[in-house]
Amino acid sequence: MPVENTQIRLAARPTGLPKASDWNISKTPLAQPSDGEFLAQTFYLSLDPAMRGWMNEGKSYIEPVALGEVMRCGGVARVIASRHDAYQVGDWVAGITGVQAYWLSDGHGVSKIDPEAAPLPKFLSVLGMPGMTAYFGLLDIGKPAPGETLVVSGAAGAVGSIVGQIGKIKDCRVIGIAGGARKCTYLTEELGFDAAIDYKADDIDASLARHCPGGIDVYFDNIGGSLLDSVLARLRLHARICVCGAISQYNNTQGIRGPSNYLSLLVNRARMEGFVVFDYANRYLDAIRAMSTWMRESRLQSREHIVQGIESFPETLLMLFDGRNFGKLIIQVADPQ
Amino acid sequence: MPVENTQIRLAARPTGLPKASDWNISKTPLAQPSDGEFLAQTFYLSLDPAMRGWMNEGKSYIEPVALGEVMRCGGVARVIASRHDAYQVGDWVAGITGVQAYWLSDGHGVSKIDPEAAPLPKFLSVLGMPGMTAYFGLLDIGKPAPGETLVVSGAAGAVGSIVGQIGKIKDCRVIGIAGGARKCTYLTEELGFDAAIDYKADDIDASLARHCPGGIDVYFDNIGGSLLDSVLARLRLHARICVCGAISQYNNTQGIRGPSNYLSLLVNRARMEGFVVFDYANRYLDAIRAMSTWMRESRLQSREHIVQGIESFPETLLMLFDGRNFGKLIIQVADPQ
Repeated sequence: MPVENTQIRLAARPTGLPKASDWNISKTPLAQPSDGEFLAQTFYLSLDPAMRGWMNEGKSYIEPVALGEVMRCGGVARVIASRHDAYQVGDWVAGITGVQAYWLSDGHGVSKIDPEAAPLPKFLSVLGMPGMTAYFGLLDIGKPAPGETLVVSGAAGAVGSIVGQIGKIKDCRVIGIAGGARKCTYLTEELGFDAAIDYKADDIDASLARHCPGGIDVYFDNIGGSLLDSVLARLRLHARICVCGAISQYNNTQGIRGPSNYLSLLVNRARMEGFVVFDYANRYLDAIRAMSTWMRESRLQSREHIVQGIESFPETLLMLFDGRNFGKLIIQVADPQ
Repeated sequence: MPVENTQIRLAARPTGLPKASDWNISKTPLAQPSDGEFLAQTFYLSLDPAMRGWMNEGKSYIEPVALGEVMRCGGVARVIASRHDAYQVGDWVAGITGVQAYWLSDGHGVSKIDPEAAPLPKFLSVLGMPGMTAYFGLLDIGKPAPGETLVVSGAAGAVGSIVGQIGKIKDCRVIGIAGGARKCTYLTEELGFDAAIDYKADDIDASLARHCPGGIDVYFDNIGGSLLDSVLARLRLHARICVCGAISQYNNTQGIRGPSNYLSLLVNRARMEGFVVFDYANRYLDAIRAMSTWMRESRLQSREHIVQGIESFPETLLMLFDGRNFGKLIIQVADPQ
């Protein structure tokens, strides 16, 4: 039994991009489970844009991480000691492990996973929060109809790539916006998107005009910023914008850029609507069932970008904000073999 | 029979506030009706914030007014000559008369009105476009439920004052935002609003916090700008924002100010949705029936601000943008007595 835990705690609230001094990496004595608790070893951690928001002070859809607290983080872990009736040593679980090598849990918000059903990292991507976010955000908020034009930003990312593939399954015309030729080729060649726009190289407005000549019915927005304005300028009547995130703005020290073309909502009788994936928790199983079926039918695939070592966390997190990751960004904390 | 017509035509596309040189006032020979047309004398003209948008070039929910064209405008008129089967001399009609003393029409988009049913100016306010806008925007887009908190901006205006009164009829708590103590007193003392905020004198954020301690369920926005951001910061879960207009931005030469707090839509699972009243044309009669009933029951009242003379149009229009009007702004072109 190990005796010490590696933990990464929030040391300071960042201004702009989080920097090394905003974190505190420590080795602490490993706590043992009390009655009703289990102890699990963390194997994989999920790095998500939303984490940047959790580091800020102030009301959001979830409490901010307190200063000095272990950074909130989803992960996959295996139970190594248990005084909880529902969890046995050897069980694989997913939950909010935090950025730490070992996780003491009372079982709240934990789900067991079957490591035979899919490779473990998939439980943090297509079968985890990003997959749930894509599924409910697109289907419940975007409500795409066959033949409609769907545009998704952050399209090669964990959420966007799944949104686009579900859009194809629902018979939409799908245009993805991503950064770099390699990601764009992946969207059209491997995921079956109808077109991809490289925001680092292409003229966005001209590209949207070319690929969406009749306008945009559904926009699934992970990025915000000027892209959102470009899409607003090309909405079709009764369009729906799913506000999933605004990663372009999370580290903006000048304040958030609001969409100056928002009156296009009026002109086009369109709507812009936000959602939070946790609200759909009682329907996750339906989504996992649907997604698993599509995966078996080879209609849905996901790509994971795995970085080694918990100590890499402060630097690895930054990859999300400059787009260096290609696929769902995951840290492997320990080798499950 | 008169022989000449006074017409106000758009001479130039304004930058910022429309100025005198953007208009051309002319006397032209009066055309006579051909088969299927009628000629009517204009008595009242409706001045609306949306007119500013019609003066701009570019796609909107309606074609822009062409340079040299008679300015588009709703009005109330009486038929003085007819070769149209459905209209007789003496009939009172409402329609898009344009800013002119006489109106030649083929009957398209025209509705007959009963001058015994209500004073003529009411057909341009509560029983006209502003009333329809308030009714369908609030009920179809805002979907207020009893006990919810409704905030409306431009609350003493033609649309806002009706929105707030319908909100009270639907058992909402209603807070109006208007400019000046006189308008605010009117809202609370005469129209039954629960509270009014004077945007010229009060601290908006503090006032919203005081009057909406539990947050805002429905916001009916006529104003846009910084007010919209203040409201976004206080949304309740599942809030709805009806995007009716943004009069604070229509003459903004720096471009439209987008709502930088729009990510509150995400945090609060809220929506922002636009609408155009013309889409509800096939349901206008339902609305007029409901509004007439509420008027008879003294639950709904409207105030008209009537200015004399068609030549005053260029100057009178500006009253909308600095809030000098108090009530639905109307020009009386001729005396019906």
